[in-house]
Amino acid sequence: MGRIEIRRNILEANENLARRNRDFFASNDVLVVNVMAAPGAGKTSTILKTIESLADQYAFAVIEGDMASRIDADVMAERGIPVEQINTGNMCHLDANMIREAAGKFTYDRPTILFIENVGNLVCPSEFSLGEDLNIVIASTTEGHDKPYKYPSIYLRADAVLINKIDLLEAMEFDRKMFCDGVAAVKPMPPLFEISCRNGSGLDDWACWLASECERKLGGTRGKLAEG
Amino acid sequence: MGRIEIRRNILEANENLARRNRDFFASNDVLVVNVMAAPGAGKTSTILKTIESLADQYAFAVIEGDMASRIDADVMAERGIPVEQINTGNMCHLDANMIREAAGKFTYDRPTILFIENVGNLVCPSEFSLGEDLNIVIASTTEGHDKPYKYPSIYLRADAVLINKIDLLEAMEFDRKMFCDGVAAVKPMPPLFEISCRNGSGLDDWACWLASECERKLGGTRGKLAEG
Repeated sequence: MGRIEIRRNILEANENLARRNRDFFASNDVLVVNVMAAPGAGKTSTILKTIESLADQYAFAVIEGDMASRIDADVMAERGIPVEQINTGNMCHLDANMIREAAGKFTYDRPTILFIENVGNLVCPSEFSLGEDLNIVIASTTEGHDKPYKYPSIYLRADAVLINKIDLLEAMEFDRKMFCDGVAAVKPMPPLFEISCRNGSGLDDWACWLASECERKLGGTRGKLAEG
Repeated sequence: MGRIEIRRNILEANENLARRNRDFFASNDVLVVNVMAAPGAGKTSTILKTIESLADQYAFAVIEGDMASRIDADVMAERGIPVEQINTGNMCHLDANMIREAAGKFTYDRPTILFIENVGNLVCPSEFSLGEDLNIVIASTTEGHDKPYKYPSIYLRADAVLINKIDLLEAMEFDRKMFCDGVAAVKPMPPLFEISCRNGSGLDDWACWLASECERKLGGTRGKLAEG
């Protein structure tokens, strides 16, 4: 069996598990948001700020993916947020099987947004479905405006793009137009939110959009359950 | 054949090619520096500044690794630096075979430092030898001080660590001690250079260290060639 065939088999097996996860989440009124970004773009901060914004409306849970450590999981736990840490060892991404195990440890007694913070990596996470409803890519002004050109596959998967650290846009000479042109070269421009986890700007718009997606999904699910 | 065995075979085949690359580079008086970092940490800027510093002493060549685009190769070419772009498609790292092909396209008529700018990724490049003499990891203050804890494998491989964007250390609340403790938890602390490609600080020390490594390697090579 060749390398390409092995790779295809791995991806197919993952897709099958991702479909099962999707059924599990739908039947438990869970909206799943897969958060992907380069290391240090602000995944943890964005998740925390979003939970603060929407804490009155939904329950939350977080799965933290890292090769090692439980630094981010500790941050969540300190704030009383239900969290599971996955340490991937030498693996560069989360996969559907890891999510199945971790997600099964939460209790879902009301509509829940489950954030999955993927391993910080702009390449490998884009290939592995987890059973998510939304894929979010967080860019940051400090990492430069050329990333969509260099890492197109992750932007291809994005249902929304966040540009974090927008308070540093000018200091970083971040070219917003070049960035957006790069995303638009890969796919029709998805919703874009410019945010700063430091000064809070733009977070309301993003949280508002996420809540509307959540209503669409969970409203739909509840409708189906009522019919069934 | 199982997944683990396939993985081992791939890594072994790569090691064999890396050894051949190493022989090729040694016989051509080339010091090879594999530059690894997260996206946007400043790999290209650091390479450019280093070449500026040492242009009188060595010839230079650069191999640029990216999934897509030739943005960084164009930057090098504009400055008259011999450069080859490798586009990896959906691959998350460079491997020894890619380097063999690209490196064969340069002419080496005097002692040369060859920089390999790996794909921006703190996970996968750490597993694949390229035939390099030195592995350099560039962190940046903007990506945070916790990365050695989360991505230990790449730091385990580092012969030197650079902290770039050091001019933003205070603004970013980058905890130097926490960062260093994280590296030292993985391996005996390698040489560490705090640099700013923006204001030039620290670059002389780094270039000086690199030149000394180069003398050690190429001096040694020339010695051996003279003996042979």
